[in-house]
Amino acid sequence: MISPIKTLNKEVYLLDQRQLPQQEIWLKIDDADSMARAIKDMVVRGAPAIGISAAFGIALEAERNRSMDIIDLKEHLLDAITTLRSTRPTAYNLFKVLADIEGLIKSSKESISLLKDLWNYAENLKDFDIKRCIKMSENGLEIIKGYRNFLIHCNAGALATGGYGTALGLIRRRFEYDPDIFVFVDETRPYLQGSRLSAWELSKENIPYAIITDSAAAFFMSQKRIDCVIVGADRITKDGDVANKIGTYGLAILADYHKIPFIVAAPVETIDPSIRSGNDITIEHRDKSEITHFKGIPVSPDDAEAINPAFDITPSRFVTYIVTEKGVFSYPYDFFKE
Amino acid sequence: MISPIKTLNKEVYLLDQRQLPQQEIWLKIDDADSMARAIKDMVVRGAPAIGISAAFGIALEAERNRSMDIIDLKEHLLDAITTLRSTRPTAYNLFKVLADIEGLIKSSKESISLLKDLWNYAENLKDFDIKRCIKMSENGLEIIKGYRNFLIHCNAGALATGGYGTALGLIRRRFEYDPDIFVFVDETRPYLQGSRLSAWELSKENIPYAIITDSAAAFFMSQKRIDCVIVGADRITKDGDVANKIGTYGLAILADYHKIPFIVAAPVETIDPSIRSGNDITIEHRDKSEITHFKGIPVSPDDAEAINPAFDITPSRFVTYIVTEKGVFSYPYDFFKE
Repeated sequence: MISPIKTLNKEVYLLDQRQLPQQEIWLKIDDADSMARAIKDMVVRGAPAIGISAAFGIALEAERNRSMDIIDLKEHLLDAITTLRSTRPTAYNLFKVLADIEGLIKSSKESISLLKDLWNYAENLKDFDIKRCIKMSENGLEIIKGYRNFLIHCNAGALATGGYGTALGLIRRRFEYDPDIFVFVDETRPYLQGSRLSAWELSKENIPYAIITDSAAAFFMSQKRIDCVIVGADRITKDGDVANKIGTYGLAILADYHKIPFIVAAPVETIDPSIRSGNDITIEHRDKSEITHFKGIPVSPDDAEAINPAFDITPSRFVTYIVTEKGVFSYPYDFFKE
Repeated sequence: MISPIKTLNKEVYLLDQRQLPQQEIWLKIDDADSMARAIKDMVVRGAPAIGISAAFGIALEAERNRSMDIIDLKEHLLDAITTLRSTRPTAYNLFKVLADIEGLIKSSKESISLLKDLWNYAENLKDFDIKRCIKMSENGLEIIKGYRNFLIHCNAGALATGGYGTALGLIRRRFEYDPDIFVFVDETRPYLQGSRLSAWELSKENIPYAIITDSAAAFFMSQKRIDCVIVGADRITKDGDVANKIGTYGLAILADYHKIPFIVAAPVETIDPSIRSGNDITIEHRDKSEITHFKGIPVSPDDAEAINPAFDITPSRFVTYIVTEKGVFSYPYDFFKE
């Protein structure tokens, strides 16, 4: 199974997603700082994968400092949590995972058992994430089995999770169920998670696909070549507004206009019960060079300005279904009702 | 004034738009074949500029074969028209210009005067195009002078015309009228006419702008940062459906949803009276390598499929105004009423 995070005894490796699909390079990560840098620089990306990586970052940091007494170690690890928390502002999983780990550290009385707990937490989170992706895909199959032509945006695949994927997990399951499908893959500028990462995963599984530019999606919808849009989520509010990769909001409006179902697949962990409206979610703006340059080569005038929001907010009314490991929800969203 | 076509006595040069904005290289074009190749390879692009270039291609071809007797020359030039006609299928101006020239050739009785007529036709077409762009911008100013924050897509600028530009001509005029404006420039994948060409023109004129990814347009609309969208056109049907750069259709739906005026600026020549519906316009599909590679560097798996439509069709009901040199039209479009 494709996974972006590999562990070997107490060593942790990340598949360098910046180099995909041309090179498959595994980077050894040694501590929380280098994990934070890897998250910030997008060696690893995708809300669930970021959460899991952060958990391993803390376990590594604890391992490196295992000789500290418990008081110092706890203080040191709480600092590491602060560092990891400051890497990417939009995905909710990161904050959820770090809050859990913070609780674990604060209640700990002794270094050896804390170390064990931190490694277990990270390993279990990864396993649990794969299992919930598979469960999600089973729940999603009921909704999507009648469709054959899908559009996906960004990479909500194995590479964005512990493995298997959220949106791309639904596609995997749909392909297993009946391989007569076709996937349009938005290239997903500026970082090309579609053409670089989702296409790489689909190629590995021999699922038929074609990459299109982001702005061609509307054209293919108008040609009735797309039956269903499936995306992941970085954060979902209590009322079902969805923060996801820039471009998602536009796709949702276009799908609505063309009467195409628009499906979000994400673990329940993505839902932030403290926020009602998407307007309250912080949108990360990334460096303009992601737009003005390509692999260091300028593609715009030397003095060009660019604005590079990494996410946008899709209001819940445009989201036909939210597929989670706990079940499928629909508008109006009420995730926590009894 | 910026122009993509420069003439010096009987020599014709094209600014190589594939190399912009990093390098300003002028390619000398010697005959109709090399002009056809330059159009196909997008050394020159933009519906009006393609038309003017084709006219110069025929003049050059006549010049090169000036020693032929008139019968042979006419036959030879009609062949050259066929070659030029097969370069790009979507823009209407090319076909209109070549039909005019065909008439000129067929009615000609003598080589020397035909040569003179062909050069005059090309030179006049370029001058006329600049003048009509300026007239168009005057007509457009009345519509847009109340707006400050514009979104443009692709390059409908000086580089796409004889000079001054259509959509970007309106922006130029608006900036002259009152420089307190801001222009969002869609990068326009896959060919990056926005980040490479429109940004280059705006930089040269010191008009404030920022490049955004195509899929971020909806986000900025939702943030109320865009008051008005202006695009060019490659062909307009009798009823006002607009063929333009891929992505235009999606923007028009998004502008409609956000209640932002969507303006098309194009010369009357762009209107094809023989076609009623946009569905009857041939959409050029370009090579998949424009998506799968960047300057020869792969950005997708080696076996990746990609589908690369270069244009899409925007139904007339989404087009708030069509600004031409003859006046401003609005829905329902009736260009030829008395």
